[in-house]
Amino acid sequence: GCRPGPGELATEKEAEESHRQDSVNLLTFILLLTLTILTIWLFKHRRVRFLHETGLAMIYGLLVGVILRYGIPATSYHNKTPPSCSLKEGPVSTLLLNVSGKFYEYTLKGEINSREIHNVEQNDMLRKVTFDPEVFFNILLPPIIFHAGYSLKKRHFFRNLGSIITYAFLGTAISCFVIGNLMYGVVKLMQVAGQLTDKFYYTDCLFFGAIISATDPVTVLAIFNELHADGDLYALLFGESVMNDAVAIVLSSSIVAYQPSGANTHMFDASAFFKSVGIFLGIFSGSFVMGAATGVVTFTKLHCFPLLETALFFLMSWSTFLLAEACGFTGVVAVLFCGITQAHYTYNNLSEESTKRTKQLFEVLHFLAENFIFSYMGLALFTFQNHIFSPLFIFGAFIAIFIGRAFNIYPLSFLLNLGRRHKIKGNFQHMMMFAGLRGAMAFALAIRDTATYARQMMFTTTLLIVFFTVWVFGGGTTPMLSWLHIRVGVDPDQDQQPCGDNFQVLQGVRIAHRLSKTKQESAWLFRLWYTFDHNYLKPILTHSGPPLTSTLPSCCGPLANCLTSPQAYEVSVHMHLQNRTEMHTAKVHCSICSVHFTGFMFSLNTNKQTNKQISSPTSSLAW
Amino acid sequence: GCRPGPGELATEKEAEESHRQDSVNLLTFILLLTLTILTIWLFKHRRVRFLHETGLAMIYGLLVGVILRYGIPATSYHNKTPPSCSLKEGPVSTLLLNVSGKFYEYTLKGEINSREIHNVEQNDMLRKVTFDPEVFFNILLPPIIFHAGYSLKKRHFFRNLGSIITYAFLGTAISCFVIGNLMYGVVKLMQVAGQLTDKFYYTDCLFFGAIISATDPVTVLAIFNELHADGDLYALLFGESVMNDAVAIVLSSSIVAYQPSGANTHMFDASAFFKSVGIFLGIFSGSFVMGAATGVVTFTKLHCFPLLETALFFLMSWSTFLLAEACGFTGVVAVLFCGITQAHYTYNNLSEESTKRTKQLFEVLHFLAENFIFSYMGLALFTFQNHIFSPLFIFGAFIAIFIGRAFNIYPLSFLLNLGRRHKIKGNFQHMMMFAGLRGAMAFALAIRDTATYARQMMFTTTLLIVFFTVWVFGGGTTPMLSWLHIRVGVDPDQDQQPCGDNFQVLQGVRIAHRLSKTKQESAWLFRLWYTFDHNYLKPILTHSGPPLTSTLPSCCGPLANCLTSPQAYEVSVHMHLQNRTEMHTAKVHCSICSVHFTGFMFSLNTNKQTNKQISSPTSSLAW
Repeated sequence: GCRPGPGELATEKEAEESHRQDSVNLLTFILLLTLTILTIWLFKHRRVRFLHETGLAMIYGLLVGVILRYGIPATSYHNKTPPSCSLKEGPVSTLLLNVSGKFYEYTLKGEINSREIHNVEQNDMLRKVTFDPEVFFNILLPPIIFHAGYSLKKRHFFRNLGSIITYAFLGTAISCFVIGNLMYGVVKLMQVAGQLTDKFYYTDCLFFGAIISATDPVTVLAIFNELHADGDLYALLFGESVMNDAVAIVLSSSIVAYQPSGANTHMFDASAFFKSVGIFLGIFSGSFVMGAATGVVTFTKLHCFPLLETALFFLMSWSTFLLAEACGFTGVVAVLFCGITQAHYTYNNLSEESTKRTKQLFEVLHFLAENFIFSYMGLALFTFQNHIFSPLFIFGAFIAIFIGRAFNIYPLSFLLNLGRRHKIKGNFQHMMMFAGLRGAMAFALAIRDTATYARQMMFTTTLLIVFFTVWVFGGGTTPMLSWLHIRVGVDPDQDQQPCGDNFQVLQGVRIAHRLSKTKQESAWLFRLWYTFDHNYLKPILTHSGPPLTSTLPSCCGPLANCLTSPQAYEVSVHMHLQNRTEMHTAKVHCSICSVHFTGFMFSLNTNKQTNKQISSPTSSLAW
Repeated sequence: GCRPGPGELATEKEAEESHRQDSVNLLTFILLLTLTILTIWLFKHRRVRFLHETGLAMIYGLLVGVILRYGIPATSYHNKTPPSCSLKEGPVSTLLLNVSGKFYEYTLKGEINSREIHNVEQNDMLRKVTFDPEVFFNILLPPIIFHAGYSLKKRHFFRNLGSIITYAFLGTAISCFVIGNLMYGVVKLMQVAGQLTDKFYYTDCLFFGAIISATDPVTVLAIFNELHADGDLYALLFGESVMNDAVAIVLSSSIVAYQPSGANTHMFDASAFFKSVGIFLGIFSGSFVMGAATGVVTFTKLHCFPLLETALFFLMSWSTFLLAEACGFTGVVAVLFCGITQAHYTYNNLSEESTKRTKQLFEVLHFLAENFIFSYMGLALFTFQNHIFSPLFIFGAFIAIFIGRAFNIYPLSFLLNLGRRHKIKGNFQHMMMFAGLRGAMAFALAIRDTATYARQMMFTTTLLIVFFTVWVFGGGTTPMLSWLHIRVGVDPDQDQQPCGDNFQVLQGVRIAHRLSKTKQESAWLFRLWYTFDHNYLKPILTHSGPPLTSTLPSCCGPLANCLTSPQAYEVSVHMHLQNRTEMHTAKVHCSICSVHFTGFMFSLNTNKQTNKQISSPTSSLAW
């Protein structure tokens, strides 16, 4: 029972004030988003296409940033250096402060530049609207990336998988090295011109190359979607941008891990280089395996309870992220592959209600997170404290990303065309070149560490590149499409599942036909994979596809029996018997609920197997 | 370009380690939730009703708590007191630490008990799984409370509004004072018995009375829902529990604000008392007005773009919370009334797709947040560091909450029955008495401040009360229902809107009939409110109800014309003309999109008004 002393009351009031300030800050962002949504709606309604919602969010962010920076009178700042105390040991995470016998606990926030000490309180207002950069990685990026994976248009994606992987891996690596080397030249030039006031190493340049190689053509893709542009081009662009985010994030952390031993730091060192390559491969494959594994393990059947199903789906995706982070892998990459795997396997096992719900849930999360990041970018231009605007570096970076993108697209397209049946035509290549916008991932990677001079310069430049590409290239998409004579208004039904499911039988035939067409169009490697996936993985992991007993050799009979879900049998029987009325009535009641984990099945109620499942076979044939 | 020095590297590694630890902790909770969901599903499947998901979440939380507490070898702790430094001034929010010329920034975490100083590092492991209590208030409670408001079954709720308000306000106040006084007696007794080692004031007892008066019969209500128990009883219980959360939270902060001036602290002081009452009224009405206003202002029409609509809806609800917090009101209370208002007005203006989406979105958020809180409760029993188990206090509290509940229910029911046409029967009263479970709100209020001896004892006791009531009373609901002969299996259709909308005309008549019945059943005050709402508020705020031109006197013609939405006219015309086929075709295209704010209308496209809106009138008549 302590009535608080006067000191305590002051602290309590301060805490209350800080809580209120936090609320106001968050409210600012939310009102920004609200304003963005209302304007987007107006734009959509008027069919304005030159400015995408992300571009709009940036503009509003900029405006608020200007107001915060210049609109609030400076008198409210009390220019005061906070008290300091000295210790001989290195920084500890927890520090105790003894004020006349009372102890207060303090936690380490980070190192602070000696020139900033006097600004700590002065810039408090602007610092308050600054988020911990880890928020971007741990809260905002995961839903964006997961949604990208989960909403891949599968048929076109898998048909172009080889090309997408080539662009994403080889292309990003090329782009990273080209940009890195060009920027090293720019940095040398700046050194000569005396415009560089602090160190800027070769590894810093490579790091810049890595972060700026993550493309994010969200604006272009939105317009493609709206105009129903060519499906293959869409898949190439979307697939590349999704995958190169993953490559860029791992690449950048491998470059950070490149620490040559001995005296010649920041020089080329073969062992350190191979160590970095090893780290890249290790982190990437680790994250990939983890994401794919969790995507597959995800419960497969909790029908009847869509709420539980949706909640579980959400939790599993999130735990993939956390698991990867806990193991030292990259959560964002794991989440991407988790999304792709879930879209491919788990999606078929969800109830119809849950497929809708999960899609909508992640759609909303993705929408909010994306617009938040972009409006934060706008805000950061004026509220971030340590911008270093270097015209030479910025100009060089614009040239370098252009050249880097060209070295990525054109040579690789040439090589890919040697092997592709459907060539990537010249106008497609130009469009891909044009669509190299930068966005959320480049920003998040750049803001993650802004401690050194080089990183601060990179951050400023990245911000400007994002602004320019989103506004200019994003806005120029529609004219560019017509200028390059790219086909629009393609029948979107070719890509999507029909919503109704009354025409399943007819559809089944059509889709099976499409499958064989897709197979023909693909390279031999993917034909092999298709067959393996369709005959073995799908039957084991989902309740669709042919029963294993019919695809495995007869010697494996008992194993096949054990691994095949009872519904898969049902399905193959039903395929012959079903008619519309029967399906309709069968769909009304939902009596079987069994949990089906990878390869293990807990069948709890196997006496009555007629249920919704019968709608799966056709949809599983779809990719 | 700084290659990090050895000290910096150590900090970096420490940060990485701490990040990994954070991931593991969050992962623990997510796996807990996953396990809970899987078990719930099993229970639902087997129709087990004695254990609700929240009870289950607590059990799993307890198990993990035991493992964390006793399962991890103590050798991993390094018993070390963190370094401390001294200052003469009071605690500051930002402290600089100078380690051989380098400056590090530290932020204030809070005061620390002198006896805990040596445990700071020792208990680091257990402290790590401890969340900032504000997380409960700012992140987990809002979706729970909003969902409660948004999913009120309106007809029964408004029919019993008078009784609900009486129980919630008067009842909670009675319960708070009865429990507070009884506990003061217990505390006096403990003082005599020498079992009290620190101060425990009368205001502390009242505070305990306030926090423990927030009921949360989530288990009971789930069973009611499942068994379709009597609608009025459901509305009474649900309404009371939703509203008394709001009352309890404001009441507790008014009690904290009760600071008598002068020497006689903790004695009765009339001016301080009235100040507290004033604070209560001020905060409550402020939060109410703010919530209701935002609920009404919310955009009313963004049809065609359900994603934008859903996102906007979500943001507006959240900004209500933040706005209230920023103004010094109570966000949770504002969010509750925002939910109720939105369910009543905005819901009618949303597109069909969005009504589903918003419901589902908040359903998932509510589900996850609720189960998270309950599993955290289980965990806290073993991982919270400052439990004070006082058998006498705990025993006294159990008796006191029982008596407090009885003083709330029985006398008020007697008084209410004098005025009610539909009496609250004896068995209903017993059921309400029985359903006084404690849950998330009591816990969140108790954990918010555990700095003093009294508060720590309260926290421990609250935790045990929640466990006991959820498991024992929650588990005993089904037997209790049959023992009290409470009607189950009531037709739930009476409460809900039918899903299809092909039978609108017939329904319209039925619903209008129901409306008049509901009106008859209510007291005069609410009949007045009904009429006012139906004739004036609904037409202004939504696109349903009769056009204002027909309800306002003719002298107000121009004003009425200006305020009535064009759709409302359409609607009244359509009511005569419509037939099934026409409605069906009209619903296919959606050509009009206008934003309609409170009383102001921006009609952007008024040439074609036939759209989905025509389905609104009947649904608006429903309460």
